Amino acid sequence: MTKKAFQDFYPENMSHCYGCGRLNEHGLHIQSHWEGEESVCHFKPHSYHTAMPGFVYGGLIASLIDCHSTGTAAAAAYRAANREMDTNPPLRYVTAALHVDFLKPTPMDTLLELRGKVAEIKGRKVVISVDLNADGQTCAKGQVVAVQAPETFFTATK
Amino acid sequence: MTKKAFQDFYPENMSHCYGCGRLNEHGLHIQSHWEGEESVCHFKPHSYHTAMPGFVYGGLIASLIDCHSTGTAAAAAYRAANREMDTNPPLRYVTAALHVDFLKPTPMDTLLELRGKVAEIKGRKVVISVDLNADGQTCAKGQVVAVQAPETFFTATK
Repeated sequence: MTKKAFQDFYPENMSHCYGCGRLNEHGLHIQSHWEGEESVCHFKPHSYHTAMPGFVYGGLIASLIDCHSTGTAAAAAYRAANREMDTNPPLRYVTAALHVDFLKPTPMDTLLELRGKVAEIKGRKVVISVDLNADGQTCAKGQVVAVQAPETFFTATK
Repeated sequence: MTKKAFQDFYPENMSHCYGCGRLNEHGLHIQSHWEGEESVCHFKPHSYHTAMPGFVYGGLIASLIDCHSTGTAAAAAYRAANREMDTNPPLRYVTAALHVDFLKPTPMDTLLELRGKVAEIKGRKVVISVDLNADGQTCAKGQVVAVQAPETFFTATK
């Protein structure tokens, strides 16, 4: 896919996140795109991202849901404001609350698909619901309450 | 600390977890111990475990809460059965639900402390509440619903 991901639009000083920062050389490089009203992320775990042998580590699943959701929250906020993601001031979201229900073990050795929906968008808050699918089955469901990062996050950090 | 951690007692085929498996060479090697009625885990993030610069990545925090809680659940189940953790059959717990409230940004460059409490233990289910502290402040609170892993997890996996 050549279209830029939500995360490609993050300002440079917000692009060091272990989960989704394009500038974090050790990170997961989670990337998200719109597909109509849903946001989609694909991720192939490394062999060491395991829980029980054969199944994906729950902390990785939580990480994917987290970054995919904050990215979706930002993209949704730009959409709601009729703005393109490359316009200033930047809109970035941080996680206030993360919930994951692990419905069944998530198999390794397959491409994971996360599909996000905007459940609520109001003021500085965006709530995102996410399904994590593998081999055609929904293995986990997540919900993230994301809040817009204050201006100080852009100016006070190095 | 020379005393064995909860995770040191996990059977070999359950010790590959990216979060807490002693046999996962790429993993986080999360370790938990009792301190009276509370379970404690200390963890020093790597510099690349960042979210915004200066703050710890939320997905790492979720991972720490997850593995510390399933470890605590196992240890609590042994305690409830008046069994030592090196006795058979092994008791291992998996996460059914994970919830994290991020109260404030968690600072980098400091040792994180997780303190877990058994909120509920009933049948195959154990609920663990966790505070994540840094520099004397509680930065995140977590709750994990852990369920005892079925026997097939021990026998069917490689």
